Amino acid sequence: MTLPVAWKMPLPLPDPACIEGARAQQNSLTKPPGSLGRLEEAAVALCGQQHRAVPSVDRVHIAVFAGDHGVCDEGVSAFPQAVTAQMIANFAGGGAAISVLARELGAALEVVNLGTVGNVPADLPGVIDASIAPATGNIAVQPAMTDVQVAAALTAGDRAAARAAEAGADLLIAGDMGIGNTTTAAAVACALLYEAPEALVGAGTGLAPEAIQHKATVVGRALNRHGENREPLAVLQSLGGFEIAAIAGAYLGAAARGIPVLVDGFIASAGALIAVRQQPTLRSWLHFGHRSAEQGHRRVLDALEAEPLLDLGMRLGEGSGAATAVTLLRSACALHNRMASFADAGVSDGKG
Amino acid sequence: MTLPVAWKMPLPLPDPACIEGARAQQNSLTKPPGSLGRLEEAAVALCGQQHRAVPSVDRVHIAVFAGDHGVCDEGVSAFPQAVTAQMIANFAGGGAAISVLARELGAALEVVNLGTVGNVPADLPGVIDASIAPATGNIAVQPAMTDVQVAAALTAGDRAAARAAEAGADLLIAGDMGIGNTTTAAAVACALLYEAPEALVGAGTGLAPEAIQHKATVVGRALNRHGENREPLAVLQSLGGFEIAAIAGAYLGAAARGIPVLVDGFIASAGALIAVRQQPTLRSWLHFGHRSAEQGHRRVLDALEAEPLLDLGMRLGEGSGAATAVTLLRSACALHNRMASFADAGVSDGKG
Repeated sequence: MTLPVAWKMPLPLPDPACIEGARAQQNSLTKPPGSLGRLEEAAVALCGQQHRAVPSVDRVHIAVFAGDHGVCDEGVSAFPQAVTAQMIANFAGGGAAISVLARELGAALEVVNLGTVGNVPADLPGVIDASIAPATGNIAVQPAMTDVQVAAALTAGDRAAARAAEAGADLLIAGDMGIGNTTTAAAVACALLYEAPEALVGAGTGLAPEAIQHKATVVGRALNRHGENREPLAVLQSLGGFEIAAIAGAYLGAAARGIPVLVDGFIASAGALIAVRQQPTLRSWLHFGHRSAEQGHRRVLDALEAEPLLDLGMRLGEGSGAATAVTLLRSACALHNRMASFADAGVSDGKG
Repeated sequence: MTLPVAWKMPLPLPDPACIEGARAQQNSLTKPPGSLGRLEEAAVALCGQQHRAVPSVDRVHIAVFAGDHGVCDEGVSAFPQAVTAQMIANFAGGGAAISVLARELGAALEVVNLGTVGNVPADLPGVIDASIAPATGNIAVQPAMTDVQVAAALTAGDRAAARAAEAGADLLIAGDMGIGNTTTAAAVACALLYEAPEALVGAGTGLAPEAIQHKATVVGRALNRHGENREPLAVLQSLGGFEIAAIAGAYLGAAARGIPVLVDGFIASAGALIAVRQQPTLRSWLHFGHRSAEQGHRRVLDALEAEPLLDLGMRLGEGSGAATAVTLLRSACALHNRMASFADAGVSDGKG
C-alpha cells in the first residue's frame, strides 16, 4: 500500500520571525496588553503559520468526509445507517448545517464520499466519489480496514488538502458524516490514550444510558480484539473509520502544504490525535473550533493540549463546530490588521 | 429628578407562542435534536423576543458610553485618566477594537460622551455629547452622582435605546469606556451581592497584585461610606459611574421597546445587575456575549444565572466581547432559518 507523502515527511514549521513580529504588533495596538485574550493568540499563530504580517482566513476550504461503519451491525446508533447516504444528498442540496454555515462564510464546501451502505445518486453537485467499500469492517469482530483501504482513505484526505492548496485556501476544515462514528472514534481514542471505554463512549446522536453502556461493551470487545499495538497506523486501520482516516490525512496534507487547520469536534479530534501521534509537529498547525458535548471529547482535547474557541454544547459533526468558530478567527485577523496603534491614535500607553 | 419611564414601567415579555413554534422548527431540522446546543437556545430565545418565526440579528446597534471616575484620585488604574477622552477620539477615528468589530459586522456604532476629564474635540463623527460633569465623585469619600446626575445618565442610556428602536435594530449592545470603571463596577457588584471587595476586585487594565490589594481597600472604603442601602438606584448613585448608569438605562430602554440585548463584560454586567434588580423581567431580554478575564465577572454572571457564549480571556470593554459574539447569534439565526427539515430533505429522523 502507498501512504501519502505527508504521513512520513518532515512537516514545515510556523515561522518564528512572523510570530515575534505579530506579538510586537499586538502590543502596539490601542488596548491594554493581552486584553483581547485568545483572539490575540490566534492572530499571532496565524501569522506564523501563514508566514504573513497580515493574517487572513477569508478563503476557507471545508471538506466533509462521509463513510459507513460496519460496527453499526452491533446496534450502536440512534439513527439508521441509511442516514449517511441521505445526508450526503442533503449536503449537496444545501440543507444541512454545514451547507448553511459554508454559505454564510463564503467557504468552499466539498463532500468526499468514501463509501456508504445506502445509495448515493451519481453526479450530486460538490460530491466527490472516492468510495472504498460500502462500509468498514465491524470492529467488534474484525479490523475496520485492509492495508489498501486505510491507504486509500488517508490519500482521499490528502487529496482534499491538495485541492485546498490549489484553491489558495487560508484555512482547512475537515468534517465528518458517518452513522456509528462516535463508536469508532471512541475506540481509536481509547487505544491511543489507554482509557477504558466507559471514559470515552458517549450518547452520540442521542442514546439512552443503557444503550451507551451497550456501546461501551462493543468498544471493549473491539479493544480486546485489537490487542496491544498502539502504533497510529495500526490503531487507525484496526479501529477507525474511512472518514477518521481521511481527516487525519487531510490534516497532515494541509500542514505539509502550509495551510493551518481548524479542528472540529470528537470525530475530527480522533483524526487529529492519530495524526499528531504520527507527526507531533502537526500540532503547531492546529486551531481548535469547539468542545463537543460528546463526553469523550474533553479527554481527547486534553491529550492534544487544546483549548477550543467555543464550548456551546454542540454535537453535530459535519465540521459544524469549526465552521461556527471561523468568524472568531476572522475577528482576530480584523483586529490584528486594522486597529490603530497608541502612537498613531495619540493615546497614552500608560508607560510614559 | 425624572427617571426614564422604563425604570419603573412593566416591561413587555417575550412571546411564548413564538418560542414554542421555534422549538418545533428546531426539532424538524436535519440534525439530532439538541445537537446545535446553545445555538438552538439562542435562536429560540430571539424568536420569542422578536415575535418572529424568522429571527435576525442583521441590524446591530452598538452604543459605547464613556465617562470618567473620580475614584481615579485614589490611584486605582494602570492608565492615566486622559485615556478616556483619547479613546473617544479613537472610537470616532475607527481605530479602536469596537470600531473595527462594528465595521466587520456592518453595525451602527455611536459613542455617548457622558463627561471626561480630558478634552474631547467638538463634532467628532459618531460621538454624541451628553456630558454630565468632568467625572463622577470619588466614591471612596463621597457619592458618585447627585440625584440629577444619575437621572441624566440613565436617560442618556434610554435615549440610545430609543435611537436603536428608531433605526429598527434587531439587537442592542452597550459598551463602556472609562478609566477606573472596574473599581466602580466592583463596588456596585459588592453592594448588590454582599461580597467582600477581595472577591470581586481584579486587575483591570493590568494591575500588579499589590495594586489590586490597594484597589480592594479603596472599594472597601466606598462600601463603608455607602452603608446598608441595597436599593438599586441608591447603589448606582452612590457607587456607580456615568457609563454604568447609562448601560442600565439602555438595557431597560431596549427591553421596553422590544429589542433584545447582548451583554458585554464586567462593566456591562454590573449595569445589567442593577437593571435586573430593578426590573427582574429584564432578564428574559438578555443574551450574554462573553466571560471576561476580570475576576469579578464570573460571580456577577452567576448572580444573573448567565452562561455567556464566549470565554476567550478578553478584558477590553468597549462592547468588544459582545461584538465578537454577534456572529454566533447570526450563525444561530442562519441555521434556524435555512436548514432543511427531515421531511423536505428525505432524511430519516430515526423514529420510523
